[in-house]
Amino acid sequence: MSQRTKFVLDEEHTPRAWYNIVADLPAPPPPSLHPGTGQPLGPDDLAPLFPMALILQEVSTDRYLEIPDPIRDAYQLYRPSPMYRAHRLEKALDTPAHIYYKYEGVSPGGSHKPNTAFAQAWFNKNEGVTRLATETGAGQWGTSLAIAGALYGLEVKVYMVRASYDQKPYRRMLMEVYGSEVVASPSATTEYGRQVLAVTPDSPGSLGMAISEAVEDAVKRDDTKYSLGSVLNHVLLHQTVIGQEAIEQMEMAGEEPDVVIACAGGGSNFAGMAFPWLGRKLRGEGDYRLVAVESEAAPSLTRGIYAYDFGDTARLTPMVKMHTLGHDFIPEPIHAGGLRYHGMAPLVSFTKELGLVDAVAVHQNPSFEAGVAFARTEGILPAPESNHAIRVAIDEALAAREEGTPRVILFNLSGHGHFDLSAYDRYLAGALEDYEYPEEKVRAALARLPVV
Amino acid sequence: MSQRTKFVLDEEHTPRAWYNIVADLPAPPPPSLHPGTGQPLGPDDLAPLFPMALILQEVSTDRYLEIPDPIRDAYQLYRPSPMYRAHRLEKALDTPAHIYYKYEGVSPGGSHKPNTAFAQAWFNKNEGVTRLATETGAGQWGTSLAIAGALYGLEVKVYMVRASYDQKPYRRMLMEVYGSEVVASPSATTEYGRQVLAVTPDSPGSLGMAISEAVEDAVKRDDTKYSLGSVLNHVLLHQTVIGQEAIEQMEMAGEEPDVVIACAGGGSNFAGMAFPWLGRKLRGEGDYRLVAVESEAAPSLTRGIYAYDFGDTARLTPMVKMHTLGHDFIPEPIHAGGLRYHGMAPLVSFTKELGLVDAVAVHQNPSFEAGVAFARTEGILPAPESNHAIRVAIDEALAAREEGTPRVILFNLSGHGHFDLSAYDRYLAGALEDYEYPEEKVRAALARLPVV
Repeated sequence: MSQRTKFVLDEEHTPRAWYNIVADLPAPPPPSLHPGTGQPLGPDDLAPLFPMALILQEVSTDRYLEIPDPIRDAYQLYRPSPMYRAHRLEKALDTPAHIYYKYEGVSPGGSHKPNTAFAQAWFNKNEGVTRLATETGAGQWGTSLAIAGALYGLEVKVYMVRASYDQKPYRRMLMEVYGSEVVASPSATTEYGRQVLAVTPDSPGSLGMAISEAVEDAVKRDDTKYSLGSVLNHVLLHQTVIGQEAIEQMEMAGEEPDVVIACAGGGSNFAGMAFPWLGRKLRGEGDYRLVAVESEAAPSLTRGIYAYDFGDTARLTPMVKMHTLGHDFIPEPIHAGGLRYHGMAPLVSFTKELGLVDAVAVHQNPSFEAGVAFARTEGILPAPESNHAIRVAIDEALAAREEGTPRVILFNLSGHGHFDLSAYDRYLAGALEDYEYPEEKVRAALARLPVV
Repeated sequence: MSQRTKFVLDEEHTPRAWYNIVADLPAPPPPSLHPGTGQPLGPDDLAPLFPMALILQEVSTDRYLEIPDPIRDAYQLYRPSPMYRAHRLEKALDTPAHIYYKYEGVSPGGSHKPNTAFAQAWFNKNEGVTRLATETGAGQWGTSLAIAGALYGLEVKVYMVRASYDQKPYRRMLMEVYGSEVVASPSATTEYGRQVLAVTPDSPGSLGMAISEAVEDAVKRDDTKYSLGSVLNHVLLHQTVIGQEAIEQMEMAGEEPDVVIACAGGGSNFAGMAFPWLGRKLRGEGDYRLVAVESEAAPSLTRGIYAYDFGDTARLTPMVKMHTLGHDFIPEPIHAGGLRYHGMAPLVSFTKELGLVDAVAVHQNPSFEAGVAFARTEGILPAPESNHAIRVAIDEALAAREEGTPRVILFNLSGHGHFDLSAYDRYLAGALEDYEYPEEKVRAALARLPVV
């Protein structure tokens, strides 16, 4: 072999525990608040939505939480995921930088989402739950929970944002192959959905609306719990298998990163890669920058305010302290559907507020430009969300070339783009829009934040 | 870990050589014949189509041919591919059988095709070729060559069967993202294409026609060679990385297969898995059945005759001795586009004729039934072609249950089905047809075989 390209861990190296960043933070994160009373939430408040094991994970301060065997067994389908050195991309960029990427697209869902879908489904099953309700935007999360439901024998109902439901029939079909029920949101199957439809019969929906529907579904049925694909502490926790593996793989490569990059929509992909590295840094075991890359269409970390807000449009969820653009702000219809959330995970927001992580926002066209360059050199077609991270990785590599200094760059390639080809087609045809930041719309939405 | 599910080899275990079954066969395979003279082909006859390195591989009798480093480097993107034990499927079938599958869908093209696409592109590049012409049916091969072209800096022109071009726009877009030029075949860009269009302007095309166009393109341009995704000896050779890895992985699992199964269209997927196992058997190192699974829509091995025929409709290719349904037989439009070829690889046909391998044909609906059962238990959505192998693997497992005896089953999961969801959707809606064997059509096509 002339050069080492791939860093593979055998299945015995699948992490045995999830890593909890809370244990290493210099201060405790702000509590979640009850949507009605405004008081800090207790475990019982969340019991209608989640099984107790996940509620306890949500508030845990332990550094490590053991991964049960049935979940590690399912992880074996694709974990440990590979890490690659991007030799061909480096050469095309003529950069002295070393670029590494961790690839989560090898999962059966095609993204990092099964890391938490498998865990959530199993913990629900283990407490006797037989049905899960959830929402999905671009469809990566819905697909992953559909697979998890099939593997563990749970019914799954997916409220899919109407715009995606219409534009991405293949994602809908995929969930149905796995046996899930999929409806377009807003739907006539919930009270909230019917309210929205009464006012706007042709509503394209939004992630916030779909969350409201799924929460209502779960609260109203005894056999059903709610499942969320990002934002919450336990979801971020499950994703930390990514960063833990990457730390081992960078050791195999014999290098230490100067910068660790991941895209951030709700925040779980970023946290999954960055938090294990951040913990190491906080414990004095390494030093590097951690960069969250969001979309210019939903720039909560770079343009939002840090405040208590709801996770959904109907104000049914707990209030969490996060960077937000307002719970009823609806981002422009960019193709990176996973980066169209109005808020950011409270733990990611808190680390940003503490100055522990950086954030940058990227427009559609430069992100797709980076994605096409990546596909043509590295061979893998990235998800539109991942293209945001690639853009910043390439910019870092170009800066290293300018400065004539080496730099070690690690980014998370969170998924493949096999279901996003019409977006690539539109990019190649020059038909993608880079939307202006909607300052007025955000200001109006922020004026409707809850008073805490 | 409660049970071992995945068998992973590190990248150092990517095979260092391709395995050539010819070295272990009890007799030499029949030669290819010149389409004009009917005489055995010499290397010079093939020089307009292929670089000399591939021509020499085509006629080699060496047991092993070394894999050059630049090809092994590209293989590292996804090789060695994982092998899995299908614990959840076994449980669902309530069978004493142990089911193992090798998974080629982890490649950037989503199938086994890059194993030869990377090799062919590099050998062409190495001899100064700058452009490749090829055909594609379902799109797996065209995608893989498009990726190979991008990685090694070669232009690629793909003649895509019109029916697929219209029904699978995402495959077309994917090839374009990698920088390839894609036209629907029959096209107006070749003489043969114009001839067809003059007679049947709305021709849906066929693989045989698309091959004719690509061959004409290559012959007419000095900078261009032709690249074929299956059938030829050198293509089968490149695919033997699959079986070689599987032999190592079954050793890791501590089991010996009773039966090795793979689907067969042109035959390279089957040969890639089966030939290394067959070689071992011929050398007295093991004993097991080898089963090629074809489609009932193009049952060349089970219903065709063993005779000299052309590889394409326009009779431009060499004549090869193979199981064939006639070079102008056009199979019904089943969704497993990779199993719609009128012939079978000469080497696969020869081993079948020698009684060394078995063949069975499967209809669409039972194959999709097997694929959905597989997706819902194992989590991976298979390609429609792979569903044929899964059907037979499941039937073997059910037979083991009937008999109450253990059985070790190994099959090749040749690719994922992310681009085939409309086929799954039609299956779930009960709208797939199981076509009757077109006896009259085949008889008529066989009457037009060349006289040798």
